[in-house]
Amino acid sequence: MNQPLYPHLVASLADREHKAAAVHAALADRFGDRATLNLSVREQHGRGEGLRDLAAPDLVVFPESTDEVALVVKAAVARGLPIIPFGAGTSLEGHVSAPYGGVCIDLSRMNLILSVNAADLDCRVQAGVTRLDLNAYLRDQGLFFPLDPGANATIGGMAATRASGTNAVRYGTMREVTLGLTVVTPQGNVITTGGRARKSSAGYDLTRLYIGAEGTLGVITEVQLRLFGIPEKVAAAICQFPTLGDAISAVIEALQAGIPVARIEFADALTVAGVVKFSKLTDLEPRPTLFLEFHGGPASVAEQIAQMRDITDGYGGSAFRFAEKEEDRSRLWKARHDAYYAGLALSPGKESLVTDACVPISELASTIAECAALVESAGLSAPIVGHVGDGNFHMLLLFDPHSPEERESAEAVAQAVSVIAQAHGGTCTGEHGIGVHKLEAMKRENGEGVEVMRAIKAALDPLGLMNPGKTIPAA
Amino acid sequence: MNQPLYPHLVASLADREHKAAAVHAALADRFGDRATLNLSVREQHGRGEGLRDLAAPDLVVFPESTDEVALVVKAAVARGLPIIPFGAGTSLEGHVSAPYGGVCIDLSRMNLILSVNAADLDCRVQAGVTRLDLNAYLRDQGLFFPLDPGANATIGGMAATRASGTNAVRYGTMREVTLGLTVVTPQGNVITTGGRARKSSAGYDLTRLYIGAEGTLGVITEVQLRLFGIPEKVAAAICQFPTLGDAISAVIEALQAGIPVARIEFADALTVAGVVKFSKLTDLEPRPTLFLEFHGGPASVAEQIAQMRDITDGYGGSAFRFAEKEEDRSRLWKARHDAYYAGLALSPGKESLVTDACVPISELASTIAECAALVESAGLSAPIVGHVGDGNFHMLLLFDPHSPEERESAEAVAQAVSVIAQAHGGTCTGEHGIGVHKLEAMKRENGEGVEVMRAIKAALDPLGLMNPGKTIPAA
Repeated sequence: MNQPLYPHLVASLADREHKAAAVHAALADRFGDRATLNLSVREQHGRGEGLRDLAAPDLVVFPESTDEVALVVKAAVARGLPIIPFGAGTSLEGHVSAPYGGVCIDLSRMNLILSVNAADLDCRVQAGVTRLDLNAYLRDQGLFFPLDPGANATIGGMAATRASGTNAVRYGTMREVTLGLTVVTPQGNVITTGGRARKSSAGYDLTRLYIGAEGTLGVITEVQLRLFGIPEKVAAAICQFPTLGDAISAVIEALQAGIPVARIEFADALTVAGVVKFSKLTDLEPRPTLFLEFHGGPASVAEQIAQMRDITDGYGGSAFRFAEKEEDRSRLWKARHDAYYAGLALSPGKESLVTDACVPISELASTIAECAALVESAGLSAPIVGHVGDGNFHMLLLFDPHSPEERESAEAVAQAVSVIAQAHGGTCTGEHGIGVHKLEAMKRENGEGVEVMRAIKAALDPLGLMNPGKTIPAA
Repeated sequence: MNQPLYPHLVASLADREHKAAAVHAALADRFGDRATLNLSVREQHGRGEGLRDLAAPDLVVFPESTDEVALVVKAAVARGLPIIPFGAGTSLEGHVSAPYGGVCIDLSRMNLILSVNAADLDCRVQAGVTRLDLNAYLRDQGLFFPLDPGANATIGGMAATRASGTNAVRYGTMREVTLGLTVVTPQGNVITTGGRARKSSAGYDLTRLYIGAEGTLGVITEVQLRLFGIPEKVAAAICQFPTLGDAISAVIEALQAGIPVARIEFADALTVAGVVKFSKLTDLEPRPTLFLEFHGGPASVAEQIAQMRDITDGYGGSAFRFAEKEEDRSRLWKARHDAYYAGLALSPGKESLVTDACVPISELASTIAECAALVESAGLSAPIVGHVGDGNFHMLLLFDPHSPEERESAEAVAQAVSVIAQAHGGTCTGEHGIGVHKLEAMKRENGEGVEVMRAIKAALDPLGLMNPGKTIPAA
């Protein structure tokens, strides 16, 4: 942070320590060891999985209930200390860093599955439940929660960043699958939004306002989620293409034809080379590749596959390599998700900066081509994966952490990727959020709308203490 | 309106006329005949299709562009005159009435389809485009806009009320199918929200904030919509059941099995009796009935139907009566939509009050039973239809407009239906909105959340001039 966005929050370290000690003292009786000033715990909470830049909070607390979160918020606000919610720490955009210090609210102990309603295909969970824990719990009931961002994020964190991942092309993002929330406001009040009805027109859509607000308007403590019945038949397949343009054209045609593919994931030649090496999928060639998954009744799945093959054949796609047994599918999707690590494995010692542009799918091939040219001209390397059915792609910009020039170059390319995506009618972030890295891009993208967002932020969090420095750019 | 919700807006008629004349004069050069003080035009704009209560605006204008809407808003705000947006006038909840007078902005001349992107399955329309006009335009391109609330509402009005209707069980509501908006703020600024990317995590979800805000935060002038490819195969079917509980149990089982039914509509015995008479579907018996529609490839549709029949057989459902040809399907769905008029035709001379409760589907049978008992004990008659896949049902409470007692009784039942739905974990409105009739129910439903909504309203519309008296209950 070169310039402080919230000048009134810039305090001397001594002042911050003094405030944190006061909040700690206020919480000590109730929280005991669950409120700590310990430096290593604070440092563990000062960054996610993005860049290694660390901005540790002054205090970390581990509440076990919504009421305890409200207590922490009130104690912090009364003393002017910022509040940073923390889930699994898998953010790539610096959401959990504490540039102004403050109290980190680690929600990982709020991991209860509060109710599952099989007849209504919904459930209510505490914010700290992870998606893998939820799915393990649901399996016996024939239900599943489809969103799969790769990382084992918490449901609260996924809601706060409006996350999605694979499967979104069919099942939607957190915006679509969330029915309601419990939120602790910046005043320490507890509100519930939405409900169990599948739809409602009763007033402003507070649920959607808190989803994607990245903890800047309140702390999400419970989430009511839509669930889905596990499909009778699931088949996964891999298809390889001569060019990226061929792969994307096939996807566009499939979407127009209304083939209800559940997952359509793209990996470029470089990524597939890494995957072959890292995940031992040795029968793949290093070529542009689609990873597909089909859900439905057996006849429907067979029909979807036949329709899809008709289309991919027209674009020079290879024969499908199928994975129908669950262990084979798991291996296939693990390989897709491990593309991140496979990418890093291509260049030992490098770190990465992950972009998150999302464009109309007709613009995807040209957008990726422009971005790839930029990477090449910067002398960098960047494997590409994409949730191509949504027009969302990630470049894994590799850089040497010991070379400030290379990191600067990677950061410049990352910023340029946002500019290019916006010029193609897209967004700087499809699913990772703004955090601290995309404030300028967000401002450019939302224009005058940013004024409306600032007015909302000022109205709901007048002291500016909720996760300051994130999401909303300074005026 | 017994008590004014916005005391500062209560003006003498002379004062209102004076302000309206000033706004009219300010707009005269630009708008000519498109700004009028004519009484009959004003009265045509003072109510929708709900109760006949009339609260006419002081002035009606017909802008043809977003810039003209901004001009009107600025002219009205500068003179302290309220602003009421108006689409097709199909609201059932008094959204377009003008309890404090003001300028009605009739958007019906903003009926341009601005762009259609077949590759991306999206389009951008002005707010005054109706859903039937849009679908007529799209047909040649093999695309369609699935939301079907029955009435030929404008897209802007549907966005403002978070509308849905049939098809929502598969394709979602306006919340899910809207990608972005152009909005004129209460300050007369023009903002664009969202964009053409299928998903985004770039800041607060302003699109979803304006959807369902019923014109109380700004005037929606353009809408970016998701579209869908017309399915290769469409089959509609009617299935009749011994009891309402059987029909609903069959639907629950179908949803749990993940059968992707596109429409699942319910009509009770009384409604079907009306439909038989009104729409000449003479081979139907007056029994609880499901109207179904299946979309997909031929094999998928055949499989869905077979799976569905397995389920309905288990609940005593009749053989399916199919409608596969488009004209037969149109006739079937017209009959379903005409249930409103069929209901009225049952009792000549009566008017109706339409409820809009939506509950978790497992609560639907018991909720309807409670509501039906209430109707009976009040000595009223009320045919019932429902978007049963969403848990949303409408009771058509019939009353004699010449009997104040009967109307009062119908209104009391309507309020009680909201209470019952909320007690079953549902909402007072699934798709019609709050308007002027459900302010108390909305307050009860949202609890402390109403304070957050009020804070947003005060921050974005500090003068309280945007559609006053609707949506947000007074403190």
